Amino acid sequence: MAARSFTLGLDFGTGSVRALVVDCADGRILAQSVFDFPTGQGGVIVDARDPHLARQNPADYLAGLRTAVPNALDLAQRDASFSRERVIGIGVDTTGSTPIPVDAAMRPLALDPKWSSNPAAHAWLWKDHTGADEAAAITRIAREHAPEYLAVIGGTYSSEWFWSKICRCLKAAPDVFDAAASWVELADYIPAVLAGVTSPAAARRGVCAAGHKAMYSEAWGGLPSAAFLTRLDPKLAALRGRLFDNAWPSDRPAGTLSAEWASVFGLTAGLPIAMGAFDAHYGAVGAGITTGTLVKIIGTSTCDIAIAPATGAAPDVPGICGTVNGSVMPGYYGVEAGQSAVGDLLRWWVEVVCGGDEATHAALTAEASRLAPGESGLVALDWNNGNRTILVDPRLTGLIVGQTLHTTRAEIYRALIEATAFGARAIVERLNANGVAIERVISCGGIAEKNPLFMQIYADVLGYPMLIAGSPQTPALGSAIAAAVTAGAKAGGYDDFESAQRCMTRVADTSYQPNPKSRRVYDELYGLYRELHDAFGGMAQPAPANFPTLMKRLLAIRERAHGDHRS
Amino acid sequence: MAARSFTLGLDFGTGSVRALVVDCADGRILAQSVFDFPTGQGGVIVDARDPHLARQNPADYLAGLRTAVPNALDLAQRDASFSRERVIGIGVDTTGSTPIPVDAAMRPLALDPKWSSNPAAHAWLWKDHTGADEAAAITRIAREHAPEYLAVIGGTYSSEWFWSKICRCLKAAPDVFDAAASWVELADYIPAVLAGVTSPAAARRGVCAAGHKAMYSEAWGGLPSAAFLTRLDPKLAALRGRLFDNAWPSDRPAGTLSAEWASVFGLTAGLPIAMGAFDAHYGAVGAGITTGTLVKIIGTSTCDIAIAPATGAAPDVPGICGTVNGSVMPGYYGVEAGQSAVGDLLRWWVEVVCGGDEATHAALTAEASRLAPGESGLVALDWNNGNRTILVDPRLTGLIVGQTLHTTRAEIYRALIEATAFGARAIVERLNANGVAIERVISCGGIAEKNPLFMQIYADVLGYPMLIAGSPQTPALGSAIAAAVTAGAKAGGYDDFESAQRCMTRVADTSYQPNPKSRRVYDELYGLYRELHDAFGGMAQPAPANFPTLMKRLLAIRERAHGDHRS
Repeated sequence: MAARSFTLGLDFGTGSVRALVVDCADGRILAQSVFDFPTGQGGVIVDARDPHLARQNPADYLAGLRTAVPNALDLAQRDASFSRERVIGIGVDTTGSTPIPVDAAMRPLALDPKWSSNPAAHAWLWKDHTGADEAAAITRIAREHAPEYLAVIGGTYSSEWFWSKICRCLKAAPDVFDAAASWVELADYIPAVLAGVTSPAAARRGVCAAGHKAMYSEAWGGLPSAAFLTRLDPKLAALRGRLFDNAWPSDRPAGTLSAEWASVFGLTAGLPIAMGAFDAHYGAVGAGITTGTLVKIIGTSTCDIAIAPATGAAPDVPGICGTVNGSVMPGYYGVEAGQSAVGDLLRWWVEVVCGGDEATHAALTAEASRLAPGESGLVALDWNNGNRTILVDPRLTGLIVGQTLHTTRAEIYRALIEATAFGARAIVERLNANGVAIERVISCGGIAEKNPLFMQIYADVLGYPMLIAGSPQTPALGSAIAAAVTAGAKAGGYDDFESAQRCMTRVADTSYQPNPKSRRVYDELYGLYRELHDAFGGMAQPAPANFPTLMKRLLAIRERAHGDHRS
Repeated sequence: MAARSFTLGLDFGTGSVRALVVDCADGRILAQSVFDFPTGQGGVIVDARDPHLARQNPADYLAGLRTAVPNALDLAQRDASFSRERVIGIGVDTTGSTPIPVDAAMRPLALDPKWSSNPAAHAWLWKDHTGADEAAAITRIAREHAPEYLAVIGGTYSSEWFWSKICRCLKAAPDVFDAAASWVELADYIPAVLAGVTSPAAARRGVCAAGHKAMYSEAWGGLPSAAFLTRLDPKLAALRGRLFDNAWPSDRPAGTLSAEWASVFGLTAGLPIAMGAFDAHYGAVGAGITTGTLVKIIGTSTCDIAIAPATGAAPDVPGICGTVNGSVMPGYYGVEAGQSAVGDLLRWWVEVVCGGDEATHAALTAEASRLAPGESGLVALDWNNGNRTILVDPRLTGLIVGQTLHTTRAEIYRALIEATAFGARAIVERLNANGVAIERVISCGGIAEKNPLFMQIYADVLGYPMLIAGSPQTPALGSAIAAAVTAGAKAGGYDDFESAQRCMTRVADTSYQPNPKSRRVYDELYGLYRELHDAFGGMAQPAPANFPTLMKRLLAIRERAHGDHRS
């Protein structure tokens, strides 16, 4: 590369959109700007009567584009090496599955005053679980009539995914369903907006969202068959024709920047826009994923991403959310797993239950750090928002056991962190046992960078050193990398993801090593977790008869920990 | 009765002693005074390293006598009808089993500077659970060698009881054990103090404490045999000879007021002192217990008392704490059951976990009152302090299941109340199924009088109208009744408990009726509670295979409740 070149990485999260200006030479972040979504609670439309409902206002996305991108570019101008002319591409990652009903002009229905007060006409945010019954019906019908659809998504279709949400809309808000010309994932919607696409048919869809969430595969000719969809509802079969025929990997452009948005941003019209992908997938790219690496994107929830060379057979990992060729990087199967509530679980405890704030988080973390593993006598299941992997069941709930009259909020706080670590271990064990060998774990997200207690517990529970991604903004960085690859080496980017990653990603200096003594205690606690997990999650048939001794074994662990602590 | 007569009722609780001056004619409370025990946390010596430890300083008892009794008598003087000369007797109730190691002069070891800093030399408070291993050993040896000992105490000896605590002292603090000339229950210690008793052999023991906690029965000649105790430890067999041979029912005097204490109180020396009994037993008397009545004394824990005519065979109720002839009233078997944590469970939640105070209790109660049964989607086990009845297992711990990311502290508060109500229902069902038919339920204690939410939940869960005792101080009133009976009709009292109760007790005007709709929801939730209860408590063998569906059934109940709420 001769002159410096830069890409934009746009990361649409649960509460905000972040725009990054990145140096293609080394992945350095020149500038960034965040726009908080104004609608609802922290950007999420909720319903006190239904904790499963979570929607988002598409108008917030557009406001975010108009605000965050120009702000980031203006900030970048302070860097002498930067000029707007040297921006060579734009990448976009988003939450998902977050499908949006759109009209024939590709406009979200929610932007139409007729529908703007109807939550069903808004974006169905990833964590919306209203489609649980519909997900169960899809799984049931697929098991009977199209088991191949389930083989690549872990055997169970999730309520968080594309078809569950559309089915739910059809059932609960048929007027919205009927008014929708098509549905588009947020990851495809944003690139289409930037490209000035004015019809759903013209919007290019990424294989990441299509393959992981919409049961799309070239193996069966794209989306699920009309015959299959008819079994769910004939209206879905009709919708199929208004969705899309092809989905594209992440090295293909989604389109080029429209004159209108070029003018808003002060950039050149016609810049390549990378294929949109989920935050976790581009986050894995930004974290430096390779074969044998598990990337954990730890936030409100956690996404786990691994890849396997596409030269072999696709890995078949039961209970893992999905395996899609090219979804993370071209040439690899992308393997996605995840946990439905991680940061959210701690926030629930600290803010909803204890009525605390950031200072409370810090105080509880400090207090919990002084506890030895096992000392609290508690074990919890991390299912307050269901279980995404390995049980794929959103209709599971939290459980905590072992409380005495002396149990403190800090002990419960720590037990909840441990519960998420146990859930993480269940995923790693499942990957290792099914042909996706994990050799190293790289984490990213605010918790990974700021919470040593959390990371040490993970190291002790998982038994792996916990590495931290070098960038604090791996999804946006991954989007910027995708933009650099889409632009190509000739334009000042790269011709493949591997080359781009080598230059643009790194691992942080800080890492966390497993403590052998803590590991032994956590091995025991994990055994109890798995007894509860398997019994309450439906994996143990019949339920284990040693349940009655569980609390005593917990107490014994607790007392031994106290003994250790005193000596 | 010609001239008016009065008795003193002294109630030694967990945190304080209360002295009552009562009119024998109608049970009216003329005056009362409370002395808070100054030692430890709320009167309890605790150990942060061992949540099972709970001791009490005997000096606090003596300070309480010196303060509360004269204060109450002074206050009574304001009533024109009262004069100290018309006090005809003193009754005493206490917590229990609360054994105290004493020296040869009947002085608690803790009052000796040599032992005053050793927790083992203090009173072993009822809720001390350090003797769990010892209780298990006693149960094991009794099952093999003396099953008759267990038949009348529900089949399992508790860590809260006399011998478990003495065994524990022998093991954990052998120097204290060796220094003790004898051990005496608090319920026997206070009457002995008032009577000026100066040797353990001269202290009269009540059958209430002896029969319910020390495996005393006339059927096998008093305390457990030396041969049995030798199997536990030969030193216990030697101690047996320094304990007591006979225990007495509650209509026999424990002694007469010594000149020393008569002078402290300003009363006549020689006044009869009623046999000491546990607060729950005299509380049942003060609540107006009859055959067919269950008296619930709801406080930090709950004691359930029923009686059955001694003309028939002793009721044999598995898992019920005890059945002792004459322990509540002469002529009846006293049947005792109980729950280890009720008010304590709510206090744990509000004060320990939520960091709240009395205002928080009130706010959470108000918020929880607005929830419909089942709406929270939560079910909890009430075992944070173990399970006294029907599992008789102190090494059980709390469990809560059903949490989402929206679960509030008020929902958990309500779920904990419900958990204690489910535990109460398990006891009532067990009594009804084993020959102790319950026809009405009378509650007493602060929660019963002040918490309509709590009482309505109990009515709905138990399916009985919840009546409230007419007196807010039933244990002290029961003690005063025992004093009136001990004094006899000739002295201005009564010749039997039934006559005294008819005049001196009543039921309050307020009661709570079961709501049929709520009952149906709670019948379902109770089913889930029992699944958890039986599986985690060891009653279900093998553990039930339908555990995996439990959370889904909870969710279904929750959603139905939400549906009800909206309509």
